[in-house]
Amino acid sequence: MTHKVAILGASGYTGAELVRLIAQHPSLTIAALSAERKAGLAMADVFPHLRHLDLPTLCKIGEIDFTDIDLCFCALPHKTSQEVIAALPADLKIVDLSADFRLRDPAEYEKWYGNAHSAVHMQGEAVYGLTEFYREEIKAARLVAGTGCNAATGQFALRPLISAGVIDLDDIILDLKCAVSGAGRSLKENLLHAELSEGYHAYALGSTHRHLGEFDQEFSKIAGRPVKVQFTPHLLPANRGILATVYVKGDAQTIYDTFAKAYADEPFIALLPFGEAPSTHHVRGSNFCHIGVVQDRLDGRAIVVAALDNLTKGSSGQALQNANLMLGEDETAGLMMAPLFP
Amino acid sequence: MTHKVAILGASGYTGAELVRLIAQHPSLTIAALSAERKAGLAMADVFPHLRHLDLPTLCKIGEIDFTDIDLCFCALPHKTSQEVIAALPADLKIVDLSADFRLRDPAEYEKWYGNAHSAVHMQGEAVYGLTEFYREEIKAARLVAGTGCNAATGQFALRPLISAGVIDLDDIILDLKCAVSGAGRSLKENLLHAELSEGYHAYALGSTHRHLGEFDQEFSKIAGRPVKVQFTPHLLPANRGILATVYVKGDAQTIYDTFAKAYADEPFIALLPFGEAPSTHHVRGSNFCHIGVVQDRLDGRAIVVAALDNLTKGSSGQALQNANLMLGEDETAGLMMAPLFP
Amino acid sequence: MTHKVAILGASGYTGAELVRLIAQHPSLTIAALSAERKAGLAMADVFPHLRHLDLPTLCKIGEIDFTDIDLCFCALPHKTSQEVIAALPADLKIVDLSADFRLRDPAEYEKWYGNAHSAVHMQGEAVYGLTEFYREEIKAARLVAGTGCNAATGQFALRPLISAGVIDLDDIILDLKCAVSGAGRSLKENLLHAELSEGYHAYALGSTHRHLGEFDQEFSKIAGRPVKVQFTPHLLPANRGILATVYVKGDAQTIYDTFAKAYADEPFIALLPFGEAPSTHHVRGSNFCHIGVVQDRLDGRAIVVAALDNLTKGSSGQALQNANLMLGEDETAGLMMAPLFP
Amino acid sequence: MTHKVAILGASGYTGAELVRLIAQHPSLTIAALSAERKAGLAMADVFPHLRHLDLPTLCKIGEIDFTDIDLCFCALPHKTSQEVIAALPADLKIVDLSADFRLRDPAEYEKWYGNAHSAVHMQGEAVYGLTEFYREEIKAARLVAGTGCNAATGQFALRPLISAGVIDLDDIILDLKCAVSGAGRSLKENLLHAELSEGYHAYALGSTHRHLGEFDQEFSKIAGRPVKVQFTPHLLPANRGILATVYVKGDAQTIYDTFAKAYADEPFIALLPFGEAPSTHHVRGSNFCHIGVVQDRLDGRAIVVAALDNLTKGSSGQALQNANLMLGEDETAGLMMAPLFP
Repeated sequence: MTHKVAILGASGYTGAELVRLIAQHPSLTIAALSAERKAGLAMADVFPHLRHLDLPTLCKIGEIDFTDIDLCFCALPHKTSQEVIAALPADLKIVDLSADFRLRDPAEYEKWYGNAHSAVHMQGEAVYGLTEFYREEIKAARLVAGTGCNAATGQFALRPLISAGVIDLDDIILDLKCAVSGAGRSLKENLLHAELSEGYHAYALGSTHRHLGEFDQEFSKIAGRPVKVQFTPHLLPANRGILATVYVKGDAQTIYDTFAKAYADEPFIALLPFGEAPSTHHVRGSNFCHIGVVQDRLDGRAIVVAALDNLTKGSSGQALQNANLMLGEDETAGLMMAPLFP
Repeated sequence: MTHKVAILGASGYTGAELVRLIAQHPSLTIAALSAERKAGLAMADVFPHLRHLDLPTLCKIGEIDFTDIDLCFCALPHKTSQEVIAALPADLKIVDLSADFRLRDPAEYEKWYGNAHSAVHMQGEAVYGLTEFYREEIKAARLVAGTGCNAATGQFALRPLISAGVIDLDDIILDLKCAVSGAGRSLKENLLHAELSEGYHAYALGSTHRHLGEFDQEFSKIAGRPVKVQFTPHLLPANRGILATVYVKGDAQTIYDTFAKAYADEPFIALLPFGEAPSTHHVRGSNFCHIGVVQDRLDGRAIVVAALDNLTKGSSGQALQNANLMLGEDETAGLMMAPLFP
Repeated sequence: MTHKVAILGASGYTGAELVRLIAQHPSLTIAALSAERKAGLAMADVFPHLRHLDLPTLCKIGEIDFTDIDLCFCALPHKTSQEVIAALPADLKIVDLSADFRLRDPAEYEKWYGNAHSAVHMQGEAVYGLTEFYREEIKAARLVAGTGCNAATGQFALRPLISAGVIDLDDIILDLKCAVSGAGRSLKENLLHAELSEGYHAYALGSTHRHLGEFDQEFSKIAGRPVKVQFTPHLLPANRGILATVYVKGDAQTIYDTFAKAYADEPFIALLPFGEAPSTHHVRGSNFCHIGVVQDRLDGRAIVVAALDNLTKGSSGQALQNANLMLGEDETAGLMMAPLFP
Repeated sequence: MTHKVAILGASGYTGAELVRLIAQHPSLTIAALSAERKAGLAMADVFPHLRHLDLPTLCKIGEIDFTDIDLCFCALPHKTSQEVIAALPADLKIVDLSADFRLRDPAEYEKWYGNAHSAVHMQGEAVYGLTEFYREEIKAARLVAGTGCNAATGQFALRPLISAGVIDLDDIILDLKCAVSGAGRSLKENLLHAELSEGYHAYALGSTHRHLGEFDQEFSKIAGRPVKVQFTPHLLPANRGILATVYVKGDAQTIYDTFAKAYADEPFIALLPFGEAPSTHHVRGSNFCHIGVVQDRLDGRAIVVAALDNLTKGSSGQALQNANLMLGEDETAGLMMAPLFP
């Protein structure tokens, strides 16, 4: 059975990534693509790599007839997203890729994003979209909030450990290395090739990055007590990929066994042999997340390393995985392509 | 119906690329993978990005039972390839990705490759693997010789023009910009990141590159007279992609119309609107070739620009396209994935 | 003796490059730095790599007292530059890095830049700043017009050949590969890392790039007849460096000998051994230009390859070289640093 | 007064970097360059970016007459270095860039490097070459052992804090991001452009990197008790630059003040304003080290970030800084060039 989907915000990288993935999906059809400022253009004018596909012309959201749409992906900027989603048909299934419905507490949202939420009534309805940990809720959800790409990476490296109580909750450090596409197709000086190529730096230091709101919410919930991690992201000269190097206190072998058990049946999470660590090279363009565990020379300390593609598993791939569940399709449909290497 | 294939030389980039593509193919199964020096290892040890696939362990060629193999891909170094292929079962279908059977004339082979051919009797049997121009011969072939990646790019930009007689045959310049994966996974100083990143240079200057053997053979054949182009490749700091900027003398609109007619029904060749030129960004990881035609300010001169991914359309994708034809499958099976951008 | 200089437009890449070079100069002192939109900031806030230098605070042009300034570098956008320069003191020595005074003919300026020139009376006064070919005029000049970076590269590869009459003037093709810093620190989508890294494309195809105005003016002047070249620039994933691959008809050895004679005493132009070609890697961050000549397999055809750093020899290094001459200093002062490799 | 120097191992990156720096030095002359396997070649054949310099032909070490040499730089592989140095004239001043004389304890050397030291008698004589902390000893030294590039970066970020007792010595994490030139010009698969570009990974996980020998030796010495840090290096797609993100427990403002006092008079160490962090972009090609301190949201935790160029301040620049002291020259001679950006 074929499902019709719409993608709002198709002129950004996550929108284009959704199109790339859905083009290979056996049972989804793209019925509408919106991009307010580029309405009227063909998708091939905005993203020439999608030239071979037969796609709807870009339109404004107001021009879409949602009657026949089975599911809508919202790849809009945060704040815009909540306004648009509040105005969509009340029975339309929605996967939101923005930050707007990730935090359940309006006060937390306002603290991290700086504005009052304009669709507070929907914050409670939204299911947090980290598929591997909210699978059943997502199947039944109408509105799923895609996670932050950094937040996803960090949670894959930590959730099973916090749930199992095998690490010290007061001493967790996430040192993340992030590719530039996570910042979107926005015109900022620090995203220029000449500013970024051949160098690297940390940003949002001091644990001030917005994705901490997700870490705090989720880790505290599963621990049953406040958990506050340290988190330092770094911007790297690469287009795709997040590598999380996570420093924890706990027994490395126990940590490894905990992962082995937690991820035994997960189609997209691969646990490497004990002592090996992953590379972003080996997940690029795919929906896979590779995880490694290494014992430090200091007793009781371990390093967990997780790698994924921020645009795929960290964003649009995750969104499609959730959409598959919401539509009753095979969770892996359209998502089993191998990474692109080199 | 499922066909069993073997890949000889699976530890190189073209071998890995074949695995990536075949993993998504609806009716091919990989029955054997060889790599002489890495026999006994899992493919995931050599290419961790293929970790999620259930693949045969790497073995030596001598260990493969070819009885049940329907088609064999040879991704071996040239010279080794001719020796191995001569010893394979005489009725085995073979797609060779090396240079060994591209040139029909033994003297030409020896001139460009520096050694006498050891399987001269098979040179005549081999069909030149530029699918779009040898489609019927390939369907009937037992042995298909994959083209050089530069040779493929240049031919897509020139063959219809030479056939149609719309350009001056004595004044053709191909200025090619090539990504580094075309040189394979070989340990050479000039392929190191520190030697290549952030800079570029020409190589094989003076029209001395081996792929000229293919240009000379093919262009002269279709012109019915000797055609000798000028060809300068450049090595660029990128992993995938060839861009051919081709300078010709002829009427740009006539050239454009000639392409439009020649490629009207080709699933993998896209002719851009007149005056636009392609980018390697927009074909990466895909089997597509984008072609553009621009009128120079000087009357009677035109620039043709062609872009493709050297590992896919220029090598392993082409090989799979040919295998599809040889096995009676849909020519596009396993090959319609969208490019990866960004 | 110390000379005081001002740099107008210090917040762009060519401005910063001037500061980098002058910081090592034995007899120049930076007395003023302007940047209209960033006035009041320290240079270290705009370019942290210059943090170690004791520099004037950025100011508006109107705040500069030019009384004690011996020479002024203008690194402003074209059009703005002509307006600013027309208002500067009439006896102030000026090196302009913009395009505004490169073309002597107002009609040509308007044709290539799209607006009428607002300081036509100064166009005749300006000396074209290609040092190696206008040395004596520059020594005596008040206003020197820095060349385009592409225009400089192409002229180094062609001027001696046109002067000596050793190539066919009607069949010259310049295929240029250009790094991204040539486009400046401007916020354009195609200059983003995610749009540029790992790929390449041609732009300004059909010989429509503005630097052709310089080629036409200069080549026609030295030939004594109209000379119109073909010129295709390509944007590459690198921050510095231009490689010009120039296709000419003529005898390669004669061409080589012509260069050898023309550049015998030039401190910054290096002619490689016959048959070798340069790389942008080997000139990065320096004021050197490397030139190679190769014989094509086709008789009577040669390839000339020239490499330089667009920000140094192509722009700010050239500007300092000219300033040295205008101030009676050693032409090479502050400019003999070795390239940075790797 | 001019000093004559020799460089042993001139065909590697640190050798070439020494030549680049010394070429701008007011009082050093390069009298000999050795490279065993490339003896007889011109330096320009091995490093074309040094083409403009008048340099001695590469020779074998045995061919050098050390009578007139004032100081010898050894840029040889470790183990080879100790053998060569033991055979040099006993009164020759030497700056060794290898790992051979960094560790004073023969057992520690053997533990980290896997072989017994063949010049144990010289290990005691060697002075550890971290200039800012061994300045007086270096002035008087005959043999100075250059530090590891990672080791230098980490020590700049930690020594003053350990000396001042302002951080918890049992909870120090160094997460380092390293450019590829630190691995030298060696032919290894993981250093190929196609393997490295566009991705990143950790290596030597579990605090197993050899530079830990230096951290342990130095930190324990200044603390007066064993100090064992956690240290995870990552390989990044860039040619130059190390960024150390260091997680410590202590008061951020006290840490900042400690740095401000310790580095107040250092010409090459720049402390950024409180709360700001450095980028490798802004030190490339220079001898500067930039340091930043940020308060974490968690009380009592701070992040120290240090950036330097591994080939300059981390290796060859440090070596020249030390040579200046050993020869009675100004410590900064030849080393004040600005970084190259972009």
